[in-house]
Amino acid sequence: MTYCIAMWLNEGLIFASDTRTNAGVDQIASFRKMHLFQQPGARCFALLTSGNLATSQNLVSRLRSQLENDEQPNLYNAGNMFEAAEIVGEQIKAIIAHNTKGQQNAGVDFGCHVLFGGQIEGEPPRLYHIYPEGNFIEATEDTPYFQIGESKYGKPILDRIIRHDTNLHQAMKCALISFDSTMHSNLSVGMPLDVAVYRNDALELSSERIQENDGYFQRLRESWSTGIRQLFNDLP
Amino acid sequence: MTYCIAMWLNEGLIFASDTRTNAGVDQIASFRKMHLFQQPGARCFALLTSGNLATSQNLVSRLRSQLENDEQPNLYNAGNMFEAAEIVGEQIKAIIAHNTKGQQNAGVDFGCHVLFGGQIEGEPPRLYHIYPEGNFIEATEDTPYFQIGESKYGKPILDRIIRHDTNLHQAMKCALISFDSTMHSNLSVGMPLDVAVYRNDALELSSERIQENDGYFQRLRESWSTGIRQLFNDLP
Repeated sequence: MTYCIAMWLNEGLIFASDTRTNAGVDQIASFRKMHLFQQPGARCFALLTSGNLATSQNLVSRLRSQLENDEQPNLYNAGNMFEAAEIVGEQIKAIIAHNTKGQQNAGVDFGCHVLFGGQIEGEPPRLYHIYPEGNFIEATEDTPYFQIGESKYGKPILDRIIRHDTNLHQAMKCALISFDSTMHSNLSVGMPLDVAVYRNDALELSSERIQENDGYFQRLRESWSTGIRQLFNDLP
Repeated sequence: MTYCIAMWLNEGLIFASDTRTNAGVDQIASFRKMHLFQQPGARCFALLTSGNLATSQNLVSRLRSQLENDEQPNLYNAGNMFEAAEIVGEQIKAIIAHNTKGQQNAGVDFGCHVLFGGQIEGEPPRLYHIYPEGNFIEATEDTPYFQIGESKYGKPILDRIIRHDTNLHQAMKCALISFDSTMHSNLSVGMPLDVAVYRNDALELSSERIQENDGYFQRLRESWSTGIRQLFNDLP
């Protein structure tokens, strides 16, 4: 399966994704699900995918190929974030339409979900959840985060902590704990993780990979696990 | 939806269930999902249901009617817990077979899941998860708890706390927090809750209803919520 989180906060954006894919429990692999597109200083986007891996990879290839061949429209000349999200949505639709037409479908779900966020110079950052149908919703102050994939195990901690005004540092910590809870309960979500923190108006994004043996992540997991048990024991 | 938990612990058994049912978000109602069967001093069982409400209620009616009409076999003359679970499983199969035969099914899922636990004098307590197909699995020291219904939001805390040797008091507290997390994230699981604690060899069960305004539950929810945020802020 997959688990991805993206948050739209006062100070900027947070992205996190796992790397495990599976087609049944007997076919496990590792693939990057976070993809960055950027013209530093002018615009930058992060795109996180869940669902059909062929569709997801096709999507990224098509978006890059649009840029390389200067096809119109493309992510680097979209007038604003809304138009950029439309470009992504239209590509998803086109890929799924192509894959499902005139073929055996064999019960396969060709759909993929996308979290797409970033900033274009002159506009504030924005974050979208783009559906397999190509339409999308935008994060707002009331609901400042989106999840795709195996979202339930890791949702309670987000609901308790994340507000629009949560700072980036706390928000990333919360995302990591949400991943920890999810990985505890579902083997099909797994390390390593890809994470990216975007501060408003930086107009540049870089992602970091957190490996299984990452010292900070291990300390965080242990402190949380011990803390939860302690807190639990101290309850009335 | 529904959320039910049952635990098989060193000291006894724990049962908890919500009372919300829904057929779409525009049709919400309240029904008891925990049913007790007992001959105090000789045997006692708790039966928790999720899934199709008509099937669940039919199941309880049939089991009670078997007892009233002294049909053979029935829960009060089953030789052991395994046989008692078989009686429940056979009834579920019979109800679903009856409802699906020679009828429009209209895409309805007639299935129900059951958590069935208790004790018969002379045997230790046992706990089963009975499937719509009538077969079942039993809780063991490795996996001492079962959930049915909307299980994911409330699973991380169970995974962190519940062991076979967790005491009954702590286990019930953990069940309540698991419900709190679930009700935060899914509106289709709701108050009031029914809970029952069974201490080994008591051979008698009573359930308690926890209402929305229950003082202890409110304190527990608040302490947990505050504690989690505090713990989170104190993390490295």
